[in-house]
Amino acid sequence: MELAKRRGFIWPSFEIYGGVGGFYDFGPLGTILKNKIIQKWREFYVIGEGFFEIDSPSVMPEEVLKASGHVDHFVDAMVECKKCGTAFRTADLAREQTGKDIEGMSKEEMEQFIGKNRVRCPDCGGELGKIFDFNAMFRTTIGPGSKRVAYLRPETAQGIFIDFKRLQRYARGKLPFGVVQIGKGYRNEISPRQGVIRLREFTMAEAEVFFDPEDPHHPKFSNCADEKIRLWRAEDEVEGREKLTEVTAEQAVKKKFVCNELMAYYLVLTKKFLCELGIPENAIRFREQTPGQRAHYSSETWDAEVDTARFGWVEVTGLAYRTDYDLSRHAEFSKEDLTIFRADKKRKVLCHVIEPSYGIDRPLYCMLEHAYTTDGKRKYLRLKKELAPIEVGVFPHLNRDGMPEKALEVHRSLKSKGFMSEYDDAGSIGRRYARADEIGIPYCVTIDHQTLKDGTATIRDRDTAAQVRVALAELPSILRSLICGEVQLGEVGEPVKK
Amino acid sequence: MELAKRRGFIWPSFEIYGGVGGFYDFGPLGTILKNKIIQKWREFYVIGEGFFEIDSPSVMPEEVLKASGHVDHFVDAMVECKKCGTAFRTADLAREQTGKDIEGMSKEEMEQFIGKNRVRCPDCGGELGKIFDFNAMFRTTIGPGSKRVAYLRPETAQGIFIDFKRLQRYARGKLPFGVVQIGKGYRNEISPRQGVIRLREFTMAEAEVFFDPEDPHHPKFSNCADEKIRLWRAEDEVEGREKLTEVTAEQAVKKKFVCNELMAYYLVLTKKFLCELGIPENAIRFREQTPGQRAHYSSETWDAEVDTARFGWVEVTGLAYRTDYDLSRHAEFSKEDLTIFRADKKRKVLCHVIEPSYGIDRPLYCMLEHAYTTDGKRKYLRLKKELAPIEVGVFPHLNRDGMPEKALEVHRSLKSKGFMSEYDDAGSIGRRYARADEIGIPYCVTIDHQTLKDGTATIRDRDTAAQVRVALAELPSILRSLICGEVQLGEVGEPVKK
Repeated sequence: MELAKRRGFIWPSFEIYGGVGGFYDFGPLGTILKNKIIQKWREFYVIGEGFFEIDSPSVMPEEVLKASGHVDHFVDAMVECKKCGTAFRTADLAREQTGKDIEGMSKEEMEQFIGKNRVRCPDCGGELGKIFDFNAMFRTTIGPGSKRVAYLRPETAQGIFIDFKRLQRYARGKLPFGVVQIGKGYRNEISPRQGVIRLREFTMAEAEVFFDPEDPHHPKFSNCADEKIRLWRAEDEVEGREKLTEVTAEQAVKKKFVCNELMAYYLVLTKKFLCELGIPENAIRFREQTPGQRAHYSSETWDAEVDTARFGWVEVTGLAYRTDYDLSRHAEFSKEDLTIFRADKKRKVLCHVIEPSYGIDRPLYCMLEHAYTTDGKRKYLRLKKELAPIEVGVFPHLNRDGMPEKALEVHRSLKSKGFMSEYDDAGSIGRRYARADEIGIPYCVTIDHQTLKDGTATIRDRDTAAQVRVALAELPSILRSLICGEVQLGEVGEPVKK
Repeated sequence: MELAKRRGFIWPSFEIYGGVGGFYDFGPLGTILKNKIIQKWREFYVIGEGFFEIDSPSVMPEEVLKASGHVDHFVDAMVECKKCGTAFRTADLAREQTGKDIEGMSKEEMEQFIGKNRVRCPDCGGELGKIFDFNAMFRTTIGPGSKRVAYLRPETAQGIFIDFKRLQRYARGKLPFGVVQIGKGYRNEISPRQGVIRLREFTMAEAEVFFDPEDPHHPKFSNCADEKIRLWRAEDEVEGREKLTEVTAEQAVKKKFVCNELMAYYLVLTKKFLCELGIPENAIRFREQTPGQRAHYSSETWDAEVDTARFGWVEVTGLAYRTDYDLSRHAEFSKEDLTIFRADKKRKVLCHVIEPSYGIDRPLYCMLEHAYTTDGKRKYLRLKKELAPIEVGVFPHLNRDGMPEKALEVHRSLKSKGFMSEYDDAGSIGRRYARADEIGIPYCVTIDHQTLKDGTATIRDRDTAAQVRVALAELPSILRSLICGEVQLGEVGEPVKK
């Protein structure tokens, strides 16, 4: 986190005003990385799956969220210190002071737990009062006066459900079909204390997959049937066993570990997506939520979790079987018919929904943590090369004899060819390599005396610090092949002895 | 608008609940188009200008917006009907009922204007009451209780200003340097009545260009010095003259029509950007705001306006000279030193700011309106080819003899090569062409009997309806050249006689 702040990945928001918990800014490098994650997600869901993307408001009138159940159920169990009056999220206090997860307990069970385990106010040591519900949506009003209540959306999904009629017309009756939305979600946390992991405003990418409940098949399931996934099943968690079950997608369906083929398919797709971000497969597991932990709309939820050094296992994606809950509630509250007629089956269908819901901020944090490598004296950020915010650094070996001019020429030419290139002539060459390593630049090109004589330059690899010498004319095509992983450094030029 | 709704560009939000004024959804085609506009904007400002992009929260605590002046000055003059109690934005009522623009008048002047021009309640005809200020920010609170007041940001700019210290360190002392942010902005309009033009939640792309006030030069000014811009100067507007002055960027600076070189440079860049979106140059003008119309932070503002059939001249970009207003206010309120030391000039500088601030939704509407073309019986959307949401349609001429299979194969192969391709086999071929024209698909490929014999297919041009026959093997490279405008249809294959 120190490096992430210093180098412009992530900054606490409103810092000059003392900061506000649960809000973070993405600096210049963090924003490029975030945009690359979103781009990668679109490759999976919009291009790969052929889903439609929509973009709807983050301010939503109360009717919508009343129908969706969020006004009544999107609540946090909260507790106040009897002495100093500070308010806390009960489950967070319990986790911090006892290491136990009491998420999903009833208010009475939580009170008992707190009494038995002597959980106290972390600020003043005071005794805690009664537990009560706090609606975690940010509340506002639309227009003058305070009559039209609205909330900041807790998920992008509702914008999709209420557009269902128009969307299914756009899909021209095809089932299953999917719709995605990428944008901000909000959760007015009580007292967030987990840095970038528990945010009040976050970016999410959600997909709602609409299907006929009598036909929960994915047309490409056979492509992933043999892929393995590691499951922590709810029946084991309930019994206190942290036992992982590794099965193929096909077995998961056959053994009824997961509700249907679509769920298994999207578990595999989630694993593949996280691996594409550079998260090692053995740091990924799927935890099934216990009935008490599940959101009100879900009959089965799997959380993709990533193991981190700082926060332990972190949920990065939630895959929920939302059944027909949302469409039936909106049909009821809006009085619109949200069924569709299947001409081929000669019957009406109220679609069911499988929802893969991705956070973007948390995977970004996990990527940074997993990429951070120390190797002797060297520290570097081993990001996937194609995802690195800056792809190439261009340096003059010395600040004289025309080297800076040549280096700037090379830098500008790479930029014009679409590379994220950075020019740096500040400090010694060693310091510049070290800085480039810290922000994960996969390749640095150095212009030296020999460049001016024979038109060659060195390329240095971030992960091995090895260098080769290549002709400048071939630089763009060599860098392109290196960054997308088609070739290794040793294959593209003469090794340079140090 | 009818077409935009029917075909999935823009939908009224919360439609099944009766809708809420000032909110619109982007449907599947609208979202692709919007993303392409944002991509194009990044090409101009992030790649072309080399500006840094950041991403900060849309919820901002009151301190920040108190310092920025928005708590006190981001207000709308409002008036209520004495009879039915409905509230209106005074300037909107005046414009609707008299055609006159009273924006920027004092409250007393507005009251006089309304009395003299007999402006009445449009709903019940009742008399209007006193005019009063309404703060146009959405208000909320952070955390439990209502102590920590916050607002939804009225502009993305403030997130940049409060990060200035970290940003200038990232820029390593270089001046001028620019920072951009793309994201949602909010304005809690009183009673928006102008469809997609007056939104309560909108997407904006803002650039803050920080510079030394003693050195307001742009390194690339010479590239645009001879470009012409059409100005409607404030001194003419104040005198009631709708007179346009056409000058080059260089003349605009020399004649002191604009405050400095940077402003002139970004006026030209804005014109170029709008032209790249397909808006004709003669439908673009720059209107200087009169002192009464300007925002509290600006000492000179130019609005880029686009002429539309439905709403007249529409403001799409605002270019403001914000001076050191924001940095000095944040320095004062946060007690942080926001000056920078210029080592080369041996003095401290409090940077000044030129801000090009773009709406994304309004240019999108303007693009659609300008693209809509009727030509005899044919209606089509003449979008710039590279910006069209769907780039290629692939159709089987008939639904038999293997044509659908072959067409699907071609469609999938184009998709895998990165084309936004759509397969369509519903209805007659004529109806499919008509539908493709309506959503602006520049090229349709049809697989017919001859395809199965000789591996050729037809390509049809949206704008001329002309067709040529080409070999399938060459299809991707031909389509790529056609879409980016390198070649015309007539140059790539045998003309097909109809």
